[in-house]
Amino acid sequence: MNYDEFFQSSLDDLRTGGNYRVFADLERYVQTFPRARNHRDGKVHDITIWCSNDYLGMGVSDTVTTAMKEAIDRCGGGAGGTRNISGTNHYHVLLEQELASWHNKDAALLFSSGYVANMTALMTLGAKVPGMVLFSDALNHNSMIEGIRHSRAPRHVWKHNDYDDLHRQLSQYDRETPKLVIFESVYSMDGDIAPLEKIVEVAEHHNAMTYLDEVHAVGMYGESGSGVAERDGVVDRIDIIQGTMGKAIGVVGGYVAAKHSVVDFIRSFGAGFIFTTSMPPTVAAGACASVRYLREHNELRIRHQERAATLKARMKALGLPAMPSVSHIVPLLVGDAALCKQASDMLLEKHDIYVQPINYPTVPKGTERLRFTATPLHTDADIDHLCTALVDVWETLGLRREALAAE
Amino acid sequence: MNYDEFFQSSLDDLRTGGNYRVFADLERYVQTFPRARNHRDGKVHDITIWCSNDYLGMGVSDTVTTAMKEAIDRCGGGAGGTRNISGTNHYHVLLEQELASWHNKDAALLFSSGYVANMTALMTLGAKVPGMVLFSDALNHNSMIEGIRHSRAPRHVWKHNDYDDLHRQLSQYDRETPKLVIFESVYSMDGDIAPLEKIVEVAEHHNAMTYLDEVHAVGMYGESGSGVAERDGVVDRIDIIQGTMGKAIGVVGGYVAAKHSVVDFIRSFGAGFIFTTSMPPTVAAGACASVRYLREHNELRIRHQERAATLKARMKALGLPAMPSVSHIVPLLVGDAALCKQASDMLLEKHDIYVQPINYPTVPKGTERLRFTATPLHTDADIDHLCTALVDVWETLGLRREALAAE
Repeated sequence: MNYDEFFQSSLDDLRTGGNYRVFADLERYVQTFPRARNHRDGKVHDITIWCSNDYLGMGVSDTVTTAMKEAIDRCGGGAGGTRNISGTNHYHVLLEQELASWHNKDAALLFSSGYVANMTALMTLGAKVPGMVLFSDALNHNSMIEGIRHSRAPRHVWKHNDYDDLHRQLSQYDRETPKLVIFESVYSMDGDIAPLEKIVEVAEHHNAMTYLDEVHAVGMYGESGSGVAERDGVVDRIDIIQGTMGKAIGVVGGYVAAKHSVVDFIRSFGAGFIFTTSMPPTVAAGACASVRYLREHNELRIRHQERAATLKARMKALGLPAMPSVSHIVPLLVGDAALCKQASDMLLEKHDIYVQPINYPTVPKGTERLRFTATPLHTDADIDHLCTALVDVWETLGLRREALAAE
Repeated sequence: MNYDEFFQSSLDDLRTGGNYRVFADLERYVQTFPRARNHRDGKVHDITIWCSNDYLGMGVSDTVTTAMKEAIDRCGGGAGGTRNISGTNHYHVLLEQELASWHNKDAALLFSSGYVANMTALMTLGAKVPGMVLFSDALNHNSMIEGIRHSRAPRHVWKHNDYDDLHRQLSQYDRETPKLVIFESVYSMDGDIAPLEKIVEVAEHHNAMTYLDEVHAVGMYGESGSGVAERDGVVDRIDIIQGTMGKAIGVVGGYVAAKHSVVDFIRSFGAGFIFTTSMPPTVAAGACASVRYLREHNELRIRHQERAATLKARMKALGLPAMPSVSHIVPLLVGDAALCKQASDMLLEKHDIYVQPINYPTVPKGTERLRFTATPLHTDADIDHLCTALVDVWETLGLRREALAAE
């Protein structure tokens, strides 16, 4: 084989199909987020970020940055080892306690990322519990799909959010068979929310464990912000809650929270946990400070939901085809990959607005979209500016607008 | 199934077999590393760390901590998204350029960790290059084994460091079959170093690509510190070099460096790269500053090797059974799991010396050991203190000492 030719032609195929990714090259400004500096064609431009997963702006908060710098002064940069070999820092211990308490669980366990948390936890449970059968929602994130696949446990995919279908699939197995039901609360591309209570009821009926990914919900839902399970009053009926510190918490890293025995099992058998350098103390310190703040500041969540609702309402008033999200996520339908990319490029180059196009395979063909996230730091003026720009882009590209509702 | 009973009994089995891990709970002191505060039984004790993978102490250096705090002041805590969706920060771009230049390659690509780098790169190459066959050294790290397994490509394990066996195994395939030879430079448990030039010659003869894990070598070998491939003059003959920022560089994160086409292929198809939040700007900034320093300061490497050699010589002079390492790693043979744990406990409790026991399955049964890493910051007095403590422990536990060489 000529290796270079093969790699080049694979990349050319991506370009031809419109799926070759070009990354923006950004510097977020701490003082003026969501503003950032964008490096483009050797020049720099100030832009407004409209697609950050730092949903609440906690990453630029004094709470987080102060805690992170203090930890660096105290303990330095990296952790210096795996958790077992010199890499457990007291900040890790404190953060695990904080996360466990937040989710009302016995214990929590940190991972390099939410991706690694899902992959490692599901792979470990699927591979190391004899006879385990996995039941996965059809729209679960790639990190869960990879964990499930890699475990090589028998798996069943149930229709998205369809607890009747889940019930049918679980019914093939008796109560003694170990089973794990795997799903998310907020699905990040459509912004829909799973019917947690119904799913939990079905799982309990069949003596199945439940594994809930709350990565797009932690910090943002429930009175103390621990997620949709808190909001819906089902925390104590979910066996394993998985979350991330890389989105609303504003730093990086993933975790699971559960009973002692479950957490200790994953801690003891999960290769992706055992054989890797632990997160820097500064990351754990920043995340811990962020969680403590978020538990006490529900007004940030109220403001966040208000911003998202305002943006959706403004889009609808202008006939812009906002998709029916019930969460903080605001997807705007384009329906064509090339046009979606063009709309994104035009927003950036003409209006200094940064939002990535979301194309296949992340979403189904024909549902290509722009996906907006309004943080509490986006002002009314930011929303005005965005909506004016969107109308311009929609008119220039001849994109479909919806009929306006009569007065 | 009664889930809790199952988890509990699995953990009990670990305890019975002596394989249940208890983590130390440490705070490294920036000013006085390798000293650290250890939280134990509700009390704190000052200890000396003798098993850090922050091999050069860069994690506590002004170079790293200053750069990290500056990046927090500038860009905040987390990156705010995946690399594609708002999460590429200018610090990532600069670090990738620095790493590529260090390894004399076209390009580099960052991952959450060295573990994720190995897993994602090998899984992507094994799964996405049609017909690819993988050839793995028998002692490769778990992260490589998992990436290889998960790719589901045909795989052959060749005897550790045995290029003749590699040649035999490659000979089963013709030149047109895509092949990847996967190995490490420094093996971290024995401290031996692979015969890179011989392995490269065999791979070239068979038109196989080469993938070299230098995680226990980057920063520490070669005039500019880029690893054993630099020291041995074979950098340009290795296709893919994989490294970590979590050991000698002193922060966290992994990377691969290679030709543009290879890096772009992994960037475009590697799920473990695409679907995860990128590293905090502060991590990238700290790592970048560390690499720039390490490239210019060979005297740190000379001091590091001198410390390791001094420790080995002192152990041998005392009849302590130091294993035959040719690197900076100093393994001391115990040969029994329970005794190894007891030696570690006694060093910690009686002598305030922290070194983890290394037992099966990390090393073969009968070769249980303590594994010491002397940093440039360990003083002569630290070495004296350690050696005195070791003699005490060896005598108390009745461990085997070697006959002393005649004068």
